[in-house]
Amino acid sequence: MPQLLIRGIKPEDVCEISKPLVEELAEICECETDNFMLECLHTTSIFDGKVVETFPFIEVVWFERGQAVRDQFAEAVTKHVRALDIPEVEVAFRVFREDSYYINGVCCL
Amino acid sequence: MPQLLIRGIKPEDVCEISKPLVEELAEICECETDNFMLECLHTTSIFDGKVVETFPFIEVVWFERGQAVRDQFAEAVTKHVRALDIPEVEVAFRVFREDSYYINGVCCL
Amino acid sequence: MPQLLIRGIKPEDVCEISKPLVEELAEICECETDNFMLECLHTTSIFDGKVVETFPFIEVVWFERGQAVRDQFAEAVTKHVRALDIPEVEVAFRVFREDSYYINGVCCL
Repeated sequence: MPQLLIRGIKPEDVCEISKPLVEELAEICECETDNFMLECLHTTSIFDGKVVETFPFIEVVWFERGQAVRDQFAEAVTKHVRALDIPEVEVAFRVFREDSYYINGVCCL
Repeated sequence: MPQLLIRGIKPEDVCEISKPLVEELAEICECETDNFMLECLHTTSIFDGKVVETFPFIEVVWFERGQAVRDQFAEAVTKHVRALDIPEVEVAFRVFREDSYYINGVCCL
Repeated sequence: MPQLLIRGIKPEDVCEISKPLVEELAEICECETDNFMLECLHTTSIFDGKVVETFPFIEVVWFERGQAVRDQFAEAVTKHVRALDIPEVEVAFRVFREDSYYINGVCCL
């Protein structure tokens, strides 16, 4: 269920790292690899009056797992993105609430 | 104002269910149908090294309405999506804060 | 770092206002103009069974700066958008947590 909402990195680049990245994240989270969603959002960025490349940014949306797991997760994501010769990337986490998440209509609470 | 940010379901499929869905949601929320925004986000999903279909996922962003309304809302969304022969869908809710929402520059607080 | 995630306003229109808007926001936030990300999300909106224009909506994602700064920020955004002959716009703020934000793998806490 952790979702990685990716901006500023091309889908073909994400394809390249997806397998080793997700394997490492699954180990960190102690869950199956098919729980992860890697999703590139289509966006157009603007700076100083013109269209520019989007800054590489990944929002991770998941249930709270605490600071230690979060640190490892961010480190793994950053490492794999940098392996693409992308020098800078920012990663932010946002939490779903269990009482506000429904799988096929059934609340996760 | 409830916004349904939809991923993994085609706009033409959303068109098909939008009318009965929004009518049911308006009843649940006791508000007008024109308060709702159904918006498909354009994304590209990746799994196991290749581009795949995006998993059907709807994020509802709104003001807090409590568990009972949330349960009914999620049930209605799920039911209408499944009517499209989409067997699985996940729905998550995120709340706006009234002190952080501005309509034409005026705070909703 | 404040991110403006923009829906329902065309990138070319955002280009037109981006310079004066970001200069004003940088003054309000007392930071550099290159901290800001203006990003148009590609979406398709649906109402009443058909595809419609997306309602102009801007989500600002940033670290908490308090009500006074938020009010000024929303007012500035609204003023510049309206200068494009867009009569209505809604602006909502969402906060990042410092313990959940990583720049090149390093937590902002």
